[in-house]
Amino acid sequence: MSAKSAGASSALEEGQIFSPRFSADGLLTCVTVDADDGAVLMVAHMNAEALDKTLSSGLVHYWSRSRGELWRKGDTSGQLQTLVELRVDCDQDALLARVRVGGDGGACHTGRRSCFYRRVEEEDGAARLVDIAKN
Amino acid sequence: MSAKSAGASSALEEGQIFSPRFSADGLLTCVTVDADDGAVLMVAHMNAEALDKTLSSGLVHYWSRSRGELWRKGDTSGQLQTLVELRVDCDQDALLARVRVGGDGGACHTGRRSCFYRRVEEEDGAARLVDIAKN
Repeated sequence: MSAKSAGASSALEEGQIFSPRFSADGLLTCVTVDADDGAVLMVAHMNAEALDKTLSSGLVHYWSRSRGELWRKGDTSGQLQTLVELRVDCDQDALLARVRVGGDGGACHTGRRSCFYRRVEEEDGAARLVDIAKN
Repeated sequence: MSAKSAGASSALEEGQIFSPRFSADGLLTCVTVDADDGAVLMVAHMNAEALDKTLSSGLVHYWSRSRGELWRKGDTSGQLQTLVELRVDCDQDALLARVRVGGDGGACHTGRRSCFYRRVEEEDGAARLVDIAKN
């Protein structure tokens, strides 16, 4: 048993109490995956209100850092994300949302299914990006 | 085509140049998944040095925010993460690392395979955690 397993860490890591550890700017990182095949669709953030609304409505809400506003995913695109399961990580500062996507099934504003559509490749010490999306 | 597709955003989102957008504290979020079955293992952070060492060595390095130090995953646990593929998201502030895990195949310091071993369940307006890990 490591030192991290004792006391407060133990309750945080092994307990049944949901105690999300928001960052200094009030956010949790959320990884969103397709509930059916597990594909990673996007990474975004939730503040306390987005988390509450996600749990109470069953539709995923985020906090947009760039726009500074609460955002129900899919409101404009139709790509609503119905929550199938929400998980939290060991130290409760990150979430994993398993979702079913409405509309055309995509999550990225570029039109692709996933935001992670480019591979980083190193060649002669330089990194370049290769598009791997099949949409 | 949305406003976000024009100009600088277009190069960032559609270009072949890897231009990681580190946060104000110099970090990128990294989602790490098992390359074979796609299971989300952990969420951690990379600074520029961790990213460089990951790409040059093929073993995943992170920046530990709690310890304030560069961290080659698995150095103490044996759970080294061999990089199979690194992807970047549309706005280049998050990474997806597809890895093969050494040692016992786990990634979480609690001994479980994944850090996301608890489901958030709402009951009568209160959220509690249910352990779903099969190790």
